[in-house]
Amino acid sequence: MADAASYEYDLFVIGAGSGGVRAARTAAAEGARVGIAEDRYLGGTCVNVGCVPKKLYSYAAHFHDSFDDAAGFGWELDTPARFNWATLRENKKGEIKRLNGIYQHLLDKAGVALFNARATVVDAHTVMLVSDQGEQHITAAKILVATGGWPWVPDFPGCEHVVDSNRVFDLETFPERFLVLGGGYIAVEFASIFNGLGSETHLIYRRDLFLRGFDHEVRAFTRDEMQRKGTHLHFNVNIAQIDKSESGYRVTLTDGKVLEVDAVLAATGRHANIQGLGLDTLGITLNAHGKIPVNERFETAVPSILALGDVIDGPELTPVALAEAMQLVASHFSQSAPQPLDYSSIPTAVFCHPNIATVGLSEEEARERHSDIRVYATNFRAMQHTLSGSGERTLMKLVVDDATDVVIGAHMVGDSAGELIQGIAIAVRAGLTKADFDRTVGIHPTSAEEFVTLRTLSRR
Amino acid sequence: MADAASYEYDLFVIGAGSGGVRAARTAAAEGARVGIAEDRYLGGTCVNVGCVPKKLYSYAAHFHDSFDDAAGFGWELDTPARFNWATLRENKKGEIKRLNGIYQHLLDKAGVALFNARATVVDAHTVMLVSDQGEQHITAAKILVATGGWPWVPDFPGCEHVVDSNRVFDLETFPERFLVLGGGYIAVEFASIFNGLGSETHLIYRRDLFLRGFDHEVRAFTRDEMQRKGTHLHFNVNIAQIDKSESGYRVTLTDGKVLEVDAVLAATGRHANIQGLGLDTLGITLNAHGKIPVNERFETAVPSILALGDVIDGPELTPVALAEAMQLVASHFSQSAPQPLDYSSIPTAVFCHPNIATVGLSEEEARERHSDIRVYATNFRAMQHTLSGSGERTLMKLVVDDATDVVIGAHMVGDSAGELIQGIAIAVRAGLTKADFDRTVGIHPTSAEEFVTLRTLSRR
Repeated sequence: MADAASYEYDLFVIGAGSGGVRAARTAAAEGARVGIAEDRYLGGTCVNVGCVPKKLYSYAAHFHDSFDDAAGFGWELDTPARFNWATLRENKKGEIKRLNGIYQHLLDKAGVALFNARATVVDAHTVMLVSDQGEQHITAAKILVATGGWPWVPDFPGCEHVVDSNRVFDLETFPERFLVLGGGYIAVEFASIFNGLGSETHLIYRRDLFLRGFDHEVRAFTRDEMQRKGTHLHFNVNIAQIDKSESGYRVTLTDGKVLEVDAVLAATGRHANIQGLGLDTLGITLNAHGKIPVNERFETAVPSILALGDVIDGPELTPVALAEAMQLVASHFSQSAPQPLDYSSIPTAVFCHPNIATVGLSEEEARERHSDIRVYATNFRAMQHTLSGSGERTLMKLVVDDATDVVIGAHMVGDSAGELIQGIAIAVRAGLTKADFDRTVGIHPTSAEEFVTLRTLSRR
Repeated sequence: MADAASYEYDLFVIGAGSGGVRAARTAAAEGARVGIAEDRYLGGTCVNVGCVPKKLYSYAAHFHDSFDDAAGFGWELDTPARFNWATLRENKKGEIKRLNGIYQHLLDKAGVALFNARATVVDAHTVMLVSDQGEQHITAAKILVATGGWPWVPDFPGCEHVVDSNRVFDLETFPERFLVLGGGYIAVEFASIFNGLGSETHLIYRRDLFLRGFDHEVRAFTRDEMQRKGTHLHFNVNIAQIDKSESGYRVTLTDGKVLEVDAVLAATGRHANIQGLGLDTLGITLNAHGKIPVNERFETAVPSILALGDVIDGPELTPVALAEAMQLVASHFSQSAPQPLDYSSIPTAVFCHPNIATVGLSEEEARERHSDIRVYATNFRAMQHTLSGSGERTLMKLVVDDATDVVIGAHMVGDSAGELIQGIAIAVRAGLTKADFDRTVGIHPTSAEEFVTLRTLSRR
């Protein structure tokens, strides 16, 4: 093995998403010579077809409720507000272009060499780049695979008519009738978004309830609230076939039902995005989850080839990829002793309507892992809805380990749930007890104060 | 002194606000014979002329921003939304009537005897009740004064034309031109509310900046945001005189400026509401803050006469009155050893626009009490406003004791600040460190994640 200085780069990153860009910038700040290749868009899934546009579209959908809610507070409209899909789509494009530019600027400022090219790993220290300008070989002491995930669509008759979560943002025309296939968080988010924007919305999921892995009470509550808002949920059924019809698509379900819609979104999972990277020829193969196995230093079977983010195991979340990037750079390029990464108590939000946010264990997980638990749950109409006329309710829930009084899970379904749970997550991550929660004075009047005033045990 | 059983009641409460009702219900649940007198409305300031209607009106005002913001997300209105004051006012009345009924039901269910009467304390164990039905004397082992606060308006030429914060909710007509006198949290809340509802709004305050006692950066940021939203702030000036004019009121300021407005709100402070209670004749006099002195058992100079809530020292907040009520009952009517009440780290929110929320020490307090501190502040455009076209910004700030790394203050100005800070308050109350915050993974994309990703020191 050659000396590190004999390579053109100390680190060459493939994929300029959240994790790749953070690793590149942080390593460069530590003095490493860093290059990065990206063949699509800067910022990866999060900025371009994930967190950012999803949240913007979710805001757009929330306004629909606001217009309805405002009447009870004295606001009068002569005619109902109309939604213009093209305005949202084009304004979203403008904002994402701005963010792409910010990423470019961050890389430039950090002194990272950016290649707009498709990368293939040739050997343990060589990457081939292909672009309009031709082919180029680059050598690096370490190569980081940070190519993220890519939507996966199952094979069925007519599956060529579906769009995936990358393309749904840019539909040419607004789908007045919209169908989502899938039961994960991406499926429920888009079902809520299009329902809020005014589509007749159907969600098709082959199991009996969506959001597997989340707290069961949260899942059931979300189902009820989404139905109350008008989303049509079809569980225990699948798509048998899709045919093009005169006005859109004829979707035949496995129970024989037929739905006529204008667009079908398949939110049926994501796979590690490694096609054509050449990893298999180097002996780097995927594990049973379809991910690249790595050790705690993010090293693959070839130690000079690293991987992080959605291509490895772990929650597919931007903040996780960022934390991994910091950790990876601390391990490989910094003098500082890296703190081990803690994957427990990672909070997360789902931007369905109402929003879900959660940290720690579900009630079901807690029952499995702890001999005695206490559950405190409340379910109420938020103050805003005393005048809005909306029937929307909010669920809040704490799961406590009875032996230690430690709060091991906190869950919410309701307005701005992610904003509320972030602070709660600090408390849960630090192992604070129910008594610590109870000793905190409430902020009145808020919904969040319920988290510190839950005194009535719901069940053990 | 007679045996407790010889009195008609174990506890007689004067004032059915948050603290009084909680004390009455909780004592009754402990088996005490409890009566309560109220001569105005059940639920006190909070329910009738405080937290509840204020928050509802704040919601109403926020919709104005929503209509503007929605355009960038594709929502089109043929004509601007019109605000109907009478709808808001009457719907608010309906909701408060519902809440009054809930309080009545809670008292009934707890077996508390409710007297719709004006109470005077006659001696250490006797209360006189006066109502339409005449006079009545009642004896009790313990008497609890929970009569709360009442707006105070200074004396100046034309002060008879002002309304106070009790009456402003029920103005007969909507004030197109509105003026608030004062610099406390009630003043900034109503200035934001009427500005949001569409009034030309002026705030007059005799000092150089409002919200004394809050973190200075928070105050300055709030000033800038309120001005950006169009509220006219006049500092270092006072009202010299108010005259009735043809169309409203002519307000002459001490600097000679004259403002023509439709209503003037004096939000100039609140005093303990004890007039006519007869406490002075029993030797219970007010301290320098105009409050009833009590010991840690909430006993006044006459040990059988207790007091809590806004009539005693301490933050004038509903959750504080509730905590005091629980504490008082634990001290006097329960076998359980009461936990001492902790007045430190009480979080609070101000419902100006954008909202403020805060827990722990301001940067200035921290500098006084700690030899070395670290301040982490960030100020950003929330994601919603990348498309809304609004210039609204959000401020978040952590104050850390350098010696221990403990987070001793957290502050926010921005959307739903109270909802975000509640969880943070659990962490601050428990003495968690900046490292505990940093170890928590962010929920992306939220505003709240900034609280766990503040890595850049702003200043020491």
